[in-house]
Amino acid sequence: MAEKIVVALGGNALQSGKSEPTAEAQLAVVRNTCERIADISEMGYEVAVVHGNGPQVGRILLASETAKDVTPAMPFDVCGAMSQGYIGYHLQQALKYALNKRNQDIPVVTIATQMVVEPNDPGFKNPTKPIGPFYSEEEAKALQEEKGYAMKEDAGRGWRRVVASPIPRKIVEIDAIKKLWDSTIVISCGGGGIPVIENADGSLEGTAAVIDKDFAAELLAEQVDADVLMILTEVEKVAINYNKPDQQDLSNMNLADAARYCNEGQFAPGSMLPKVQAAMKFVRAYPNKKAIITSLDKAIDALKGETGTTITFA
Amino acid sequence: MAEKIVVALGGNALQSGKSEPTAEAQLAVVRNTCERIADISEMGYEVAVVHGNGPQVGRILLASETAKDVTPAMPFDVCGAMSQGYIGYHLQQALKYALNKRNQDIPVVTIATQMVVEPNDPGFKNPTKPIGPFYSEEEAKALQEEKGYAMKEDAGRGWRRVVASPIPRKIVEIDAIKKLWDSTIVISCGGGGIPVIENADGSLEGTAAVIDKDFAAELLAEQVDADVLMILTEVEKVAINYNKPDQQDLSNMNLADAARYCNEGQFAPGSMLPKVQAAMKFVRAYPNKKAIITSLDKAIDALKGETGTTITFA
Repeated sequence: MAEKIVVALGGNALQSGKSEPTAEAQLAVVRNTCERIADISEMGYEVAVVHGNGPQVGRILLASETAKDVTPAMPFDVCGAMSQGYIGYHLQQALKYALNKRNQDIPVVTIATQMVVEPNDPGFKNPTKPIGPFYSEEEAKALQEEKGYAMKEDAGRGWRRVVASPIPRKIVEIDAIKKLWDSTIVISCGGGGIPVIENADGSLEGTAAVIDKDFAAELLAEQVDADVLMILTEVEKVAINYNKPDQQDLSNMNLADAARYCNEGQFAPGSMLPKVQAAMKFVRAYPNKKAIITSLDKAIDALKGETGTTITFA
Repeated sequence: MAEKIVVALGGNALQSGKSEPTAEAQLAVVRNTCERIADISEMGYEVAVVHGNGPQVGRILLASETAKDVTPAMPFDVCGAMSQGYIGYHLQQALKYALNKRNQDIPVVTIATQMVVEPNDPGFKNPTKPIGPFYSEEEAKALQEEKGYAMKEDAGRGWRRVVASPIPRKIVEIDAIKKLWDSTIVISCGGGGIPVIENADGSLEGTAAVIDKDFAAELLAEQVDADVLMILTEVEKVAINYNKPDQQDLSNMNLADAARYCNEGQFAPGSMLPKVQAAMKFVRAYPNKKAIITSLDKAIDALKGETGTTITFA
């Protein structure tokens, strides 16, 4: 039986900081990314892909708000759905080509994915994730008044809307993802999923929130019983004492080590911390499986056990 | 064995002409539409859904072009992908709820769908479909020069970009759609699919084109071996001598009748004509099957044979 892997792609797998944030530039980066994903598939893994959407959904919202006098602005959940279409389309087009080159005749599809979050998630009480354009204090107060947005002053650069970052609880489209898994590479939970809350009558309703894509990938990995959760980021290995003279890159980390490092504040919130936490959650749920954090270019070497940081239970 | 049906939704199934083109207004219309689709599922049909995207993709492009000095404008294929995310998200959320109310525990997913068109399609030689904002003559000439867009003057209202409307040739994600069919309601080929051309090396490349969603639905119906192609529009029945004193509503039309009416110019191009042509193509491919053209509210009655226009081979 082939091993199953969920690959979580970070922002640098979709866009380069060096180029303009155009669709053409994204496609160029995505093509390179998909070569690496195809390599993983060629190794014999059954792959699923989860991706972030921070810069993309921010720009979709920005365009939408900028043009609001010409055409109605779209709510944030819809912007998230649009970003799944945008990024998923590029990924499925490029990945299919990369697979074809390797004579891997595997279908690739993007599934628009809703993610249930809890309305009483503590994240909603203290929203912290800035989204969309900057506003003047006056505009910010007006939006707070009119639309009930939470607005915060952002380091002297102006005011921005802030939304919650709740914990992902349920992948609405999980049945279809499971059904496709053994024959198809599924791109799902883009941007952590479109955040929805479950009403008392069972209906779902979009909400404004930013879901961490690493936690979403972890939940997917749990639900499809994946063997490996691979979180790709900018660095080859997780480090402690990061950027200090005594920086130490880690090849392995068990749950106890990881918990200690987290308590020591070794990992930056919103950056390495959620990745390590997602990895910990996965091996806690499946003590005989592993999570790997590494860079896109080192993904294959890390799967061979030659680099990256492998997180295990014991 | 349950009969399979492909339901093609027209613009009025997604947005009401009476309300603002907001996401909230779309969701309200979509909820009603999904009650009717759930009714069809409850009758025992295995359903797949295809939808148009004209107004939505137009507004996405408009917002994107309006905001282009703030964030790079998106190419038209990406706008199409975004519209699939937007509309698919609303449909899958609302349809799932409508099914739950009927104790129909059926998963619903949206698949981002690419549609192969031929670069030498005659449509590309004479593009006719206006998309996006209006420009001054000067701006139009500049876009023609810089980006190679085809620009046309639009009935005294200004200049607009025009793109081709090529014939859909191949649904790239058909394998996954087929795989899901018997367990899941799949929303696919949104807006006729994201138009792509196939390069010599087998890679796909997005192109600016508008694909007729009725032809896309027909192609899907052929490929999944559907029993019924149902095209929902604003009228209960197809009519000849439409809007004339001797208007005649048709309950049935065989291929020979339909061809004659087409030759007589009975059906408006870009409106009823492509629907009738798609229906004809389906029964020509499957002479023992049928296509139905009717309104959303009459879909159930039409499936019972009580109204609508049924198109058959003989």
